[in-house]
Amino acid sequence: MRPRLSITILVLLLASAGAAMAEDKLPPVSAATQECLDCHNIATPGIVAAWRRSAHARVTPEMALRKSVLASRFSALAPPKGLAKLAVGCHECHNGDKTHADSFEHNGRQVHTVVTPADCARCHSEEAQQFKKNIMSKAYGNLVNNPDYHQLEQAINGLPDGKGGFGPADPETKADSCLFCHGTEIKVLGARTVNSDLGDMELPLLSGWPNRGVGRKNPDGSLGSCGACHNGHHFSIATARQPATCAQCHKGPDVPAYKVYQVSKHGAIFASQKKEYDLNKVPWQAGKDFPAPTCASCHVSLLVNSDGVVVAKRTHQMNDRLSWRLFGLPYAHPHPAGPDTSLIVNKAGRHYPTDLDGSFASQYLIGKKDMAARQATMKKVCRSCHSSGWVNGQYARFENTVQTTNSLTLAGTNLMQKAWAKGLADPKDGRYNQPLEKKWVELWLFYANSTRYAAAMMGADYGVFGNGRWYMQKMLAEILEKVEKNPAP
Amino acid sequence: MRPRLSITILVLLLASAGAAMAEDKLPPVSAATQECLDCHNIATPGIVAAWRRSAHARVTPEMALRKSVLASRFSALAPPKGLAKLAVGCHECHNGDKTHADSFEHNGRQVHTVVTPADCARCHSEEAQQFKKNIMSKAYGNLVNNPDYHQLEQAINGLPDGKGGFGPADPETKADSCLFCHGTEIKVLGARTVNSDLGDMELPLLSGWPNRGVGRKNPDGSLGSCGACHNGHHFSIATARQPATCAQCHKGPDVPAYKVYQVSKHGAIFASQKKEYDLNKVPWQAGKDFPAPTCASCHVSLLVNSDGVVVAKRTHQMNDRLSWRLFGLPYAHPHPAGPDTSLIVNKAGRHYPTDLDGSFASQYLIGKKDMAARQATMKKVCRSCHSSGWVNGQYARFENTVQTTNSLTLAGTNLMQKAWAKGLADPKDGRYNQPLEKKWVELWLFYANSTRYAAAMMGADYGVFGNGRWYMQKMLAEILEKVEKNPAP
Amino acid sequence: MRPRLSITILVLLLASAGAAMAEDKLPPVSAATQECLDCHNIATPGIVAAWRRSAHARVTPEMALRKSVLASRFSALAPPKGLAKLAVGCHECHNGDKTHADSFEHNGRQVHTVVTPADCARCHSEEAQQFKKNIMSKAYGNLVNNPDYHQLEQAINGLPDGKGGFGPADPETKADSCLFCHGTEIKVLGARTVNSDLGDMELPLLSGWPNRGVGRKNPDGSLGSCGACHNGHHFSIATARQPATCAQCHKGPDVPAYKVYQVSKHGAIFASQKKEYDLNKVPWQAGKDFPAPTCASCHVSLLVNSDGVVVAKRTHQMNDRLSWRLFGLPYAHPHPAGPDTSLIVNKAGRHYPTDLDGSFASQYLIGKKDMAARQATMKKVCRSCHSSGWVNGQYARFENTVQTTNSLTLAGTNLMQKAWAKGLADPKDGRYNQPLEKKWVELWLFYANSTRYAAAMMGADYGVFGNGRWYMQKMLAEILEKVEKNPAP
Repeated sequence: MRPRLSITILVLLLASAGAAMAEDKLPPVSAATQECLDCHNIATPGIVAAWRRSAHARVTPEMALRKSVLASRFSALAPPKGLAKLAVGCHECHNGDKTHADSFEHNGRQVHTVVTPADCARCHSEEAQQFKKNIMSKAYGNLVNNPDYHQLEQAINGLPDGKGGFGPADPETKADSCLFCHGTEIKVLGARTVNSDLGDMELPLLSGWPNRGVGRKNPDGSLGSCGACHNGHHFSIATARQPATCAQCHKGPDVPAYKVYQVSKHGAIFASQKKEYDLNKVPWQAGKDFPAPTCASCHVSLLVNSDGVVVAKRTHQMNDRLSWRLFGLPYAHPHPAGPDTSLIVNKAGRHYPTDLDGSFASQYLIGKKDMAARQATMKKVCRSCHSSGWVNGQYARFENTVQTTNSLTLAGTNLMQKAWAKGLADPKDGRYNQPLEKKWVELWLFYANSTRYAAAMMGADYGVFGNGRWYMQKMLAEILEKVEKNPAP
Repeated sequence: MRPRLSITILVLLLASAGAAMAEDKLPPVSAATQECLDCHNIATPGIVAAWRRSAHARVTPEMALRKSVLASRFSALAPPKGLAKLAVGCHECHNGDKTHADSFEHNGRQVHTVVTPADCARCHSEEAQQFKKNIMSKAYGNLVNNPDYHQLEQAINGLPDGKGGFGPADPETKADSCLFCHGTEIKVLGARTVNSDLGDMELPLLSGWPNRGVGRKNPDGSLGSCGACHNGHHFSIATARQPATCAQCHKGPDVPAYKVYQVSKHGAIFASQKKEYDLNKVPWQAGKDFPAPTCASCHVSLLVNSDGVVVAKRTHQMNDRLSWRLFGLPYAHPHPAGPDTSLIVNKAGRHYPTDLDGSFASQYLIGKKDMAARQATMKKVCRSCHSSGWVNGQYARFENTVQTTNSLTLAGTNLMQKAWAKGLADPKDGRYNQPLEKKWVELWLFYANSTRYAAAMMGADYGVFGNGRWYMQKMLAEILEKVEKNPAP
Repeated sequence: MRPRLSITILVLLLASAGAAMAEDKLPPVSAATQECLDCHNIATPGIVAAWRRSAHARVTPEMALRKSVLASRFSALAPPKGLAKLAVGCHECHNGDKTHADSFEHNGRQVHTVVTPADCARCHSEEAQQFKKNIMSKAYGNLVNNPDYHQLEQAINGLPDGKGGFGPADPETKADSCLFCHGTEIKVLGARTVNSDLGDMELPLLSGWPNRGVGRKNPDGSLGSCGACHNGHHFSIATARQPATCAQCHKGPDVPAYKVYQVSKHGAIFASQKKEYDLNKVPWQAGKDFPAPTCASCHVSLLVNSDGVVVAKRTHQMNDRLSWRLFGLPYAHPHPAGPDTSLIVNKAGRHYPTDLDGSFASQYLIGKKDMAARQATMKKVCRSCHSSGWVNGQYARFENTVQTTNSLTLAGTNLMQKAWAKGLADPKDGRYNQPLEKKWVELWLFYANSTRYAAAMMGADYGVFGNGRWYMQKMLAEILEKVEKNPAP
């Protein structure tokens, strides 16, 4: 009996191996893509290899549409015309259509360099729509079109003007600094000739390139870069779900989400149980697919419970599970109601969501009802693993820290008002240039923010001596000493 | 011949697969636990899934007792009554027995929320006993019951009092700050009603919750939380042995163990050869099971040599392989003789293990003999991989750095004595409030500590420009300038 | 049919398993090595286990020589005499030959403790030759023999002299600080007697031991330690290629390569797609063997394209793909032409590669042609994955940041010249001791360096608020305030 049984099982094993082989048979690529691959496999083998490992090389739109609604990563109603049965290859995204100002003729085909959310939207339409409501999609304009933030930007990027002061920053410095994450404006400046192995080639010369900033202003008029998180040309959901991806722009003391995550229990579990994570699974189930959340679990991903019932819908708005905006300007405040924050004007007529007295520019911010709804969404995520007592206790503590850090910011700001009144610093040049002002900025931009992030994610090691409460108090004490001990000059 | 052989081997393979299946058959759970699982599999699926992956779900006390003494993770003399043949499930730990002030009736059963070292001790009695001697188990009282540390705590957590000064911190701020790691005091404040999917439920309302601080004051009167390191509900020894676990409370500049480890050779090997680590193995063998030590290897774990002979016994006291306490208060000093450091009084009558002149409160600290014994234990661990010349050389260098960092702290403290005498700072408000005092605190609490941790673990990158010697000298120079250049006011 | 097929496949599977077993049969070790192993398997089991996992235990010189030129890790022309068919064991490297001043008699054999690049060169001759041209190989002398750097070193390591000043550092402090990475000088001081399990043993007493600094001065007169990157006794190329290895000495704010890498796209991909990396592969192919580069990919490793054609030759010089030396002294400058930088003298007669006015000590530095050639080599690496437009754009931006950070350093230095002229600081004691000078040092050594590293590797999060531009401006503003507001004393 046994040998027969063995052989039967062996046959089954072989059959399953056969199935695996069949799956490995990649879908066909378009003729245009094949032409791209023929040269670029040699010219830029790294990105071709990355693409070959990607879902785009393995799954056609038609295959994607066959999946269940919850499992699907394809959200358009229908496949792009003519592409249903093809792999999503080079030319499917770099198709050089007329919408793209950077389209150019390349070995007999129109192609464009800068792939944008509008390109991705042909298959991932819902995500693209959600992202338009994401404050991040406006990150370029939210910085560049806000005269008040512009002063801060100049205090960081300005160059010595030879007269003891500092002039405006040059475009390359901006692109290497704030706009690296916020996104540059990419424009076609003209053409450049490249002497390649295949002879001379005329290619477009782009301003602000390279850049994969999340709010990039693209030559097709769209905003953003999906590649900020979904690294090209692998575009892996697993990578986007990993905290290291978010760390690219969220590790500095102004938004230290990653540093806090690292010292949180969630971060410690991720670091030590990585093998247990199925980061490719859609939909995603707490406990089964991930022992503890990554950034994406709480802020982005579609989550289901153990019965397959939706716990939280996928969102690329990313703040729609968040009530408070922890990023103080200078105070933490309810999230802006719309993504374009350059429209916000406070009582003093400046483009801040709060006033120096700590009050909110409420008409531009979400109200209490929305705050409660967003918090309720997030609490539902927490309760996948935590009891209501745990979750409510954590939220009460977090809300308290939002208030106390705002109080400490107010204490510092009141001292600065005295300093400005006494002439110890001159606010006319912006409020960010002079040593005393810089202490004040660090108080709220670095240390109050850090303390709040630490409270939100239970990473107290960072929020006390790491980069938090100790330094808030230090800045306050130093400002106090200067203001109280110095008479008006 | 060959087919016959093949089939024989195949049969063996299948038999071994069968054995694997048998192992996968989980032991039975108690009726009470089954009731918990029935609802919580839906209510909090994340923790149920974590538990299912845990040893508690797979190994009964009886199975654990069958292991050899060195391999066993069960240290009680006998299984808890009636539980020998059951998995360690929800109700086995959350059993709501009378010792727990937070016990409450929940769907017909008594349960308690806060699982404590006293609960764990029923199976892990030795570890619980060791932990009672661990200074960490008293971390709550060591902070809260020491009036001198209390002043430091207030300088960090205090809120503006509206008169230019700072009042005491509120309980939520304390819980979000120092007590997050030290542990909160959890008391039953009353009851709260939760509107759940299963109808209204009355649950206890707890102060200081949530918290998994290592010195938590529990409702059953016990101290500590095993979950500080053994994350619930997976409780994995592999996780506790990973440096990321320690980083939750040991990454900040006051105790930067993790940051130093990261730039040490040990840390570099861990980061780059993770696949080679068998973090679940008990007992643990250097080289074979781990290419280079993690925190636990040197400070906690049971180690054997290649002959299976014990190199170091398991300890949950954690400082019993350590001669010096690197954490300066303000000077590095021999480890306290007992875990309750709030009992320590120095010559000046303050609750510090050292005096401002650098002398030790020796009657409260271990003596030279104990120091030598602890160092000998640790050196034996080092010698699993390093020659005596290497180990002795490293220890001589480390001892030198303990002395020189204490000398630099003394130089700074002598300057502060002048500053206090001159009235440049007022020590009556505590020694931590004013800018000059804060520089002094950073000198010893951040930079001397960091330099010593770097010396202990050979992480010089952190100990020089990272956060060490450069900054010690900077603080000293800045204090010197203030003291020497300023006349008494 | 099917069973027959199955059995055939089974036979093939078994045959392949047999081959795997054959490969597992380790090559023979020398009699001398066997003697070492017999005791050290018990005395220091950790390093024996590491060695057993190493290529040295599995591959004889003869086996290595059979590989193709590109795949080989053996670069000598012939195997060391008599060792062709033996594993590279303990005594093959610790052979105690006469060149080693630390050679001693040990249980009947001559051995030496400190294995050096000269030992490794017997099989890895090309790498050893390249390393001699590496500035890192002279790291000891470049620091110790340069009187100007020596002043900086003393400002970091000096101890209080009891008169308010600081004296020279003691040797152990130096070894625990700068020389930990730069390398110590190892000399035989005499003998020491060790009471071991095998009775008393006489062993050499070494100065500066332990140390694995990259520029270590060895008892055989050679310079360096291959173990700085190729951790003993595993010596794995996979470990040397991991960023954590470089982090041991390149994480601090003076050379924050690792911190920048972590927030770069390359670093995020490495962190999130580790499973896809084949870190042992030689030669190494972008995309196929590594999705994004590690430090080694760009700076060290032999790279080929998808046709197996060399993209970049292996180099242990490590700066020969680099045009600019980002490490400001105080300005970023073209790389030194030779590895011994203590020979460099600037116009002012000081041992810096630049003058305080920003000009370069050009006769000691590579010229424009070499700079262009090195940049071309690196660009070829970049173009494995990136288009020429991307690469050129990135380089233009980087070059701009080199210039602007030098301009900001010049602005700060001009202010310091005024400060020194006014007597606000006294440069006679070195330029690193006083608070104002320390701000100036941090401006260029920490913040300009960090900003440049961030620009080079596209890690803007670190280069703005992490540790870069914000702080450059802050230092400048603080120096400006001191210089402008203070009259000469």
